[in-house]
Amino acid sequence: MEFRLIDRIRERTAQLREDVRLGIGDDAALLTVPLGQELAVAIDTLVGGVHFPHDTAPADIGWKALAVNLSDLAAMGAAPAWALLALTLPQVDPARVDGLAEGFAQLAREYGVALVGGDTTRGPFCLSVAVHGFVPPGQALTRAGACVGDAVFVTGTLGDAAGGLRLALGERPFDPADEAHRMLRARLDRPIPRVRAGLALRGFANACIDVSDGLLADLGHLCAASGVGVEIDADALPLSPASCTVFGEGPARELALAGGDDYELCFTVPPARIAAMQAALDGQGCRVTRIGRVVEGQGVSLAGGGPAPQRRGWDHFPG
Amino acid sequence: MEFRLIDRIRERTAQLREDVRLGIGDDAALLTVPLGQELAVAIDTLVGGVHFPHDTAPADIGWKALAVNLSDLAAMGAAPAWALLALTLPQVDPARVDGLAEGFAQLAREYGVALVGGDTTRGPFCLSVAVHGFVPPGQALTRAGACVGDAVFVTGTLGDAAGGLRLALGERPFDPADEAHRMLRARLDRPIPRVRAGLALRGFANACIDVSDGLLADLGHLCAASGVGVEIDADALPLSPASCTVFGEGPARELALAGGDDYELCFTVPPARIAAMQAALDGQGCRVTRIGRVVEGQGVSLAGGGPAPQRRGWDHFPG
Repeated sequence: MEFRLIDRIRERTAQLREDVRLGIGDDAALLTVPLGQELAVAIDTLVGGVHFPHDTAPADIGWKALAVNLSDLAAMGAAPAWALLALTLPQVDPARVDGLAEGFAQLAREYGVALVGGDTTRGPFCLSVAVHGFVPPGQALTRAGACVGDAVFVTGTLGDAAGGLRLALGERPFDPADEAHRMLRARLDRPIPRVRAGLALRGFANACIDVSDGLLADLGHLCAASGVGVEIDADALPLSPASCTVFGEGPARELALAGGDDYELCFTVPPARIAAMQAALDGQGCRVTRIGRVVEGQGVSLAGGGPAPQRRGWDHFPG
Repeated sequence: MEFRLIDRIRERTAQLREDVRLGIGDDAALLTVPLGQELAVAIDTLVGGVHFPHDTAPADIGWKALAVNLSDLAAMGAAPAWALLALTLPQVDPARVDGLAEGFAQLAREYGVALVGGDTTRGPFCLSVAVHGFVPPGQALTRAGACVGDAVFVTGTLGDAAGGLRLALGERPFDPADEAHRMLRARLDRPIPRVRAGLALRGFANACIDVSDGLLADLGHLCAASGVGVEIDADALPLSPASCTVFGEGPARELALAGGDDYELCFTVPPARIAAMQAALDGQGCRVTRIGRVVEGQGVSLAGGGPAPQRRGWDHFPG
């Protein structure tokens, strides 16, 4: 089925990458990985009504489909290079396709990502994106390197996207004239992958993960991969003024612990490297907050408060 | 959502590839492309009721999702290496997941393909697979190199999968005791990607494409990319005895011209290299048939019969 989506994105991302020997239009793309670089690859799917509310603007969906994948590369400390896009749509819909292409292309241009292949199919609305990035051997950030005594940091603020979802679902009436409401909804619809922060963390972070399912859930993955525990200071969690204003500080803290879709980076740093790490991240204009420490044991607990609530971070909402 | 699909495939494909530095389980996989090789990448989606009948066995679906992608690598003359799998399922269904994993893993083992990443999501049933392969620089087969005077060849037989689809849709009653019926259905459900033939064609074929949408449609793509025309001898098309027996020779020939999903390779070879090409393909146990020639002009025509019927190769069937 021909939606011309791939062409429309190609038209909007007409940039040459010398490492693309043959782009869209043949049975496969032909690509060159630079000498001395490893390839980092990831794939993620967005389903309408599961990963974004049905009323989400097509441009936001196109943006988000790429953003959640670039966030995976960011969490590895990899530099983005190429993407593949598989789109399934119930029918040809030029306005929707144009919007998807525009949002995808905006973010692709921002990070110099070339769309090198795609597939368009008739069926229920969903998008799968695969991304490829480069990282020098041995320098990738993984979930597995956290050491007892490391400090735990997070970029940006947490819980905003979950707040935006509450507004999108009407649990709290969305007021488009309210700047805080708009900011929270934008955090849900247009997540900013922390690509530059991930690159800056090479050599400083012992372990790293992106917060997609929620802090508790994702830190749990990091703990399991590293064979350690983490103790969080809930009072230290970085909350946005918007979230505190709209929901109040207590509920905002709950959203920060358990809400998903923030796409911030959570990482651990040995004490001796904290100052240098902070200088490097400051250079990227990226605020980081110390939220806890790596301890012996397993799983995530709250400082002074026993084990953290065992909630799933991100219960995808009904379609 | 946790279907354990990725784990189930990993358990079934426990093979080491030294080029996989970090496999499934982190935010991205880390991979090494061998020195002196380019990377070939492709992505394809299968949607239930669009790309396979709803009664298709899960193991066949898992197989086919990988097969149609390996066919893209075959058409480039690339050696398969890695795959990513994004699965969307309406609900957790262990029997279906086990079947999908088994079929996918069977084909992955056959070609030494490592599953290096994946994503499982709740939603309408579909699968997207991205594949990666290697090809020495300058040796990839593309759609663009066909020259006037080249002979046009195709591997195997054509029209069988389209015949299998007719049986699957009940246009002709399917008789499971009939060997010809079973063969045609198997061609639809378990396509064999022509990976070894694609590798053997390096250095012989000027242009190559895989027959996924139907011979007329796909040869049309090759003509457009190469800026040439192709004249087909319809009488020369390779038909299987099963297709001729079940449908009769005339309808079987129509299926061979317009039917999709065969995943044979169609390629052009300069006259001086035909003998060497045939020796190389014989060495792979792969039958090839000369079906026409590259001519000046554009588009596909039938020898002695004017332009070929302008039908779409593969009208996906209603869900």
